[in-house]
Amino acid sequence: MRDFSLYAITGEAFHPGRDIAEVMEEAICGGVDMVQLRDKTSSKQQVLEKAYALKKVTDAYGVPLIINDHIDVALAVDADGVHVGQNDLPLADVRRIVGSEKIIGVSTHALSEAIAAEKGGANYIGVGPIFPTNSKVDVVAPVTTAYIREVVQHVNIPFVAIGGINVENVAEVISAGAKRISVISAIAGAKDVKAATSALKAALKGARTP
Amino acid sequence: MRDFSLYAITGEAFHPGRDIAEVMEEAICGGVDMVQLRDKTSSKQQVLEKAYALKKVTDAYGVPLIINDHIDVALAVDADGVHVGQNDLPLADVRRIVGSEKIIGVSTHALSEAIAAEKGGANYIGVGPIFPTNSKVDVVAPVTTAYIREVVQHVNIPFVAIGGINVENVAEVISAGAKRISVISAIAGAKDVKAATSALKAALKGARTP
Repeated sequence: MRDFSLYAITGEAFHPGRDIAEVMEEAICGGVDMVQLRDKTSSKQQVLEKAYALKKVTDAYGVPLIINDHIDVALAVDADGVHVGQNDLPLADVRRIVGSEKIIGVSTHALSEAIAAEKGGANYIGVGPIFPTNSKVDVVAPVTTAYIREVVQHVNIPFVAIGGINVENVAEVISAGAKRISVISAIAGAKDVKAATSALKAALKGARTP
Repeated sequence: MRDFSLYAITGEAFHPGRDIAEVMEEAICGGVDMVQLRDKTSSKQQVLEKAYALKKVTDAYGVPLIINDHIDVALAVDADGVHVGQNDLPLADVRRIVGSEKIIGVSTHALSEAIAAEKGGANYIGVGPIFPTNSKVDVVAPVTTAYIREVVQHVNIPFVAIGGINVENVAEVISAGAKRISVISAIAGAKDVKAATSALKAALKGARTP
């Protein structure tokens, strides 16, 4: 898996009336180096259509596309990988379905889950929610940056901090040991998506190499 | 695809408290020669668990297992195929996901859908609902046996009549040209599943070879 640092997750509710592929293209132009299609409400066909639209954009820019939850859609559009939560299919089944080449990301909220995901063959894990969030990424209490420090010590696969991260608090996340962040609202909810992404990427870089 | 004549679709609501794999095993012992796991309400993990349980039974008896809707689950348990409706993923995408070896069945309610499914590479189609049904197989009006006659004339792939078929009316379905029937409640809802299945199979055979 190619490394990444700024991972944008789609959040269409944050940009009513604007096209998901157009918004993610702006995000990529602003510095996003991995994109996840996350859609918990649309029909399967609608998710497939969005996935095809996003794939065109991510392919054009050479950015990996990950599909949340809908493994069938990921296979249909030949996405780079899938992201699953703790309540989705077990990791071993997901790996059997997608094969050895696809990226599998797993949301984790505690060290036991992180270690299980690593042992189970996840390519990266999500670590969060770090801060309270309005995007309802997960219905669990914030794990704070303390969880980042635990993961740094005990987990060897790449991890991405997620949950309420924005340009204001990204330095705190990085100083706790994260190298990669994932956001929904900080990008999808921005008035100027490209500018907000650039600012976030700059803050991320600044914090990584102080 | 091996031919079949009595295709049982699971309907757990019809046998509260009874295990789905146990009920389907009785159905197979009664004469069912293809089984479909249909579950529109459970979580993905629950569907996966049921699929694994059913796969053990269908493998033991050498009966094909088809998974409705959950293509990822079908791949995970290496089921024999998938069944999709008109509102699921497009057939071309389903074929790309499951590969050339898996059976793909498609529900159809009109000749245009039947012909499109045949052209699109479906291995069989569902034709119905023939009669009114309580199983809510599809939220469309009964197509009556007139649709069976149309399909017999214009479609070459195997088709299975579905919707409100039981031991009383199966002869009417067969005389319209159907060779295969699919049922939910007539089997899953029976007090004695094996006996009801045997009776249905006998009626089916009797109607096929008068």
